Amino acid sequence: MAPHREGSDASVEAMVAQVEKHPISSILIIIAMQTEALPVVNKFQLIENPHSSFPKGVPWIHYHGAYKDIIINLVWPGKDLTFGVDSVGTISASLVTYASIQALQPDLIINAGTAGGFKEKGAAIGDVFLVSHVAFHDRRIPIPVFDLYGVGLRQTYSTPNLLKALNLKTGKLSTGDSLDMSPHDEASIAANDATVKDMEGAAVAYVAELLKVPAIFVKAVTDIVDGEKPTAEEFLQNLAAVTATLEEVVTQVIDFISGKCLPEL
Amino acid sequence: MAPHREGSDASVEAMVAQVEKHPISSILIIIAMQTEALPVVNKFQLIENPHSSFPKGVPWIHYHGAYKDIIINLVWPGKDLTFGVDSVGTISASLVTYASIQALQPDLIINAGTAGGFKEKGAAIGDVFLVSHVAFHDRRIPIPVFDLYGVGLRQTYSTPNLLKALNLKTGKLSTGDSLDMSPHDEASIAANDATVKDMEGAAVAYVAELLKVPAIFVKAVTDIVDGEKPTAEEFLQNLAAVTATLEEVVTQVIDFISGKCLPEL
Repeated sequence: MAPHREGSDASVEAMVAQVEKHPISSILIIIAMQTEALPVVNKFQLIENPHSSFPKGVPWIHYHGAYKDIIINLVWPGKDLTFGVDSVGTISASLVTYASIQALQPDLIINAGTAGGFKEKGAAIGDVFLVSHVAFHDRRIPIPVFDLYGVGLRQTYSTPNLLKALNLKTGKLSTGDSLDMSPHDEASIAANDATVKDMEGAAVAYVAELLKVPAIFVKAVTDIVDGEKPTAEEFLQNLAAVTATLEEVVTQVIDFISGKCLPEL
Repeated sequence: MAPHREGSDASVEAMVAQVEKHPISSILIIIAMQTEALPVVNKFQLIENPHSSFPKGVPWIHYHGAYKDIIINLVWPGKDLTFGVDSVGTISASLVTYASIQALQPDLIINAGTAGGFKEKGAAIGDVFLVSHVAFHDRRIPIPVFDLYGVGLRQTYSTPNLLKALNLKTGKLSTGDSLDMSPHDEASIAANDATVKDMEGAAVAYVAELLKVPAIFVKAVTDIVDGEKPTAEEFLQNLAAVTATLEEVVTQVIDFISGKCLPEL
């Protein structure tokens, strides 16, 4: 299970116990796409760190700055070196989460981004969800126990006060490396009881758990997966407007976090 | 494109040029499953490094040893901390490849493991393939250029002399995070023109390219995907025998590499 206050993982508990007595001083925001990242970068006047401790040659970009009493780090995996598009998906997200935690030792990770929503589960365009659980929907390994590893269901770090204060929707997130949804994916997403669907969340959660950093997931709905319009078209149509909403909510989250310890979230 | 002598990536060329004048002195073997790794560990009398530079708490295991004039590093991502099964799949493979390259700076990566084979393309149980190209079959992003990024087709480091000397079969490898094959995956695997199918190769290739290390892929066939038997059953049935064959071929590869420079492979 992921870091959360009610968890059974002793080492995570120890880590949280250490941090929770002090106000959160450093956060790491992981965002997959430039279009999603730039509104947050501009809002907090973050600047690119030209001396990031990432290896030479990787396209990953580290922005940082201070806001109130918090050091804000934002990492975007950058444009793929071969294809020139945003490095979306679970592999890039895993790598930058790993490298950023190693370099920056944040108190808390916020994975923010856009997502597809299921109207049947109550999602609408522009909704912002604070995710309760994450799981994968495209890792089918039909061997006992490997099947559960593949799905990788994890509870996110629990922030009931944040959820209440910001009046956000909550729901489960299902992650896969495809933007579309095959019938197999659809069945797995239903089994995951997901309200929103993205391409990074469960990977960020996996790495955050591995390195024992609490992580929360803020996902804004750009397209209705079980709606009329094709996902790619609807996604591109709503991307700019929804990323503006995403920035507003991320700002509210950071304002709420400021001055608080982890157990107060 | 991946590191290969005919490649167009200037920085990879520079890297290869540096290394290629000297015999290969350090290799990194990435193997996903303990059952696949242990025959190689035993063959070369590798010992576990209790002081690996991996972060505290991760299950990743670094074995090392010397053989002839080569330092052999073998990294296995270990058992999942929550589920206790081998940490198979692209996310784990990406993370250990990244962390191992950072820690060990190998001259060459060998990703060895089992794979499903397509009899229609000439694969049989126990065959060992030296892979010519890798791609993903479960990253469908139907937006121009993102679609190509998702597939992530890469040529592997070209080793014509090794291929000839060991008389191995060659073919294309398609990677995905599922052991089974959905109709969508099947169509993508066919589009990738793949002879073998695994759960890690293209992820290892992606990270190796990102960090500019040449990588080769040795894949032994445990099950025939387009055959009669269910994949999981056939995989488990043949795993032990095929991993013995895999060890033999990895040994032959290392024997061939010994004393040679990269362009001689």
